[in-house]
Amino acid sequence: MPELTLIYFNQKGRAELSRWILAYGGIPYTDERIEKEDWPEKKKAIYTGKVPVLMVDGEPLPESKAIARYLARLAGLVPEDPFKAAVCDSFVDALSDVAGEGYKIVFSSLSEEEKKKEFKEKLFPNFMKPALERMESKLSGQEWLCGDKISWADLILSLVFGAVHKRKPELMEPYPAVTGVVLKVRDLPAIKQWIETAPDTPY
Amino acid sequence: MPELTLIYFNQKGRAELSRWILAYGGIPYTDERIEKEDWPEKKKAIYTGKVPVLMVDGEPLPESKAIARYLARLAGLVPEDPFKAAVCDSFVDALSDVAGEGYKIVFSSLSEEEKKKEFKEKLFPNFMKPALERMESKLSGQEWLCGDKISWADLILSLVFGAVHKRKPELMEPYPAVTGVVLKVRDLPAIKQWIETAPDTPY
Repeated sequence: MPELTLIYFNQKGRAELSRWILAYGGIPYTDERIEKEDWPEKKKAIYTGKVPVLMVDGEPLPESKAIARYLARLAGLVPEDPFKAAVCDSFVDALSDVAGEGYKIVFSSLSEEEKKKEFKEKLFPNFMKPALERMESKLSGQEWLCGDKISWADLILSLVFGAVHKRKPELMEPYPAVTGVVLKVRDLPAIKQWIETAPDTPY
Repeated sequence: MPELTLIYFNQKGRAELSRWILAYGGIPYTDERIEKEDWPEKKKAIYTGKVPVLMVDGEPLPESKAIARYLARLAGLVPEDPFKAAVCDSFVDALSDVAGEGYKIVFSSLSEEEKKKEFKEKLFPNFMKPALERMESKLSGQEWLCGDKISWADLILSLVFGAVHKRKPELMEPYPAVTGVVLKVRDLPAIKQWIETAPDTPY
């Protein structure tokens, strides 16, 4: 196994999927967290000037999804079959876009009240609902998003919609198959332990 | 080889990288192009209601990058080594983001004059220049973006910056290594033939 250091801000955001994958795979790594006030100085030493970046035996790998896919391969969370692996990629792309729309609200300067309004009137109906409908239909005939084995697509599904289920469980009621996967992933011993012991950051 | 149909609008946009990969690999497929006026009707029959979508033996694969990565594997354009494949993914993600910023301008309702201003004052300095600098530095020590073999990252590099080189060659002058790859890809017989014979659509 290569020596791994995951560098990101002290928040969940675009590194949390990779942290879940590392936890699932029991892969040793250094979880380097940058405080926002240190960023202007630290930025200069980062290959692309952006985080997350994964250092692999000293070589930098940027881009959150490229990092997560690489780690998912190490953790056995990428299907062997090329078409199934591609379907997995397509779910991750779609769910990552949904998460990205969420970050726009979360990290905005809106008030808490305005953020709730944005969630209710834009994020949920326009981005989350279409994704939920598609995933629910996919999961009606199989146990996991990409077939009969868990994949990194199930982890991002649980990451994104677990947050919704926690705050607004009634919104998830029309999607029992998705909710089942969301809870099943969070109940895996390694993920459960990560959620319970990870640094307490909001996003 | 599976039976492939690539469905997209009658334009380059988010399907052109996949078309280049298919051309490079000499992979037979149906290039199904939807006219904008037929879209509201056609949309209903598309799995996610979005294009591009690749039909693989009748099964749908959505999301442009997931499609391109799958086709790149078929065409031998993905490195075997997992870390090199991930570095390739990271270049494609970065270049695809640059292209996405370009589409925002191209497909906007701005006048031609305003579009040129947006390109000059925002797209080039804020998005293209940082990417060009990073790619130039990467290419100073090796022939192709991901090592000593051509990959799908070189194809998207050539696709994105070939358009700039054609219209504003002076902007590419500080990046001779990138320009070299841009032209070398476009000079490959299969890509050259595709560029010369593909339907004449602006983007």
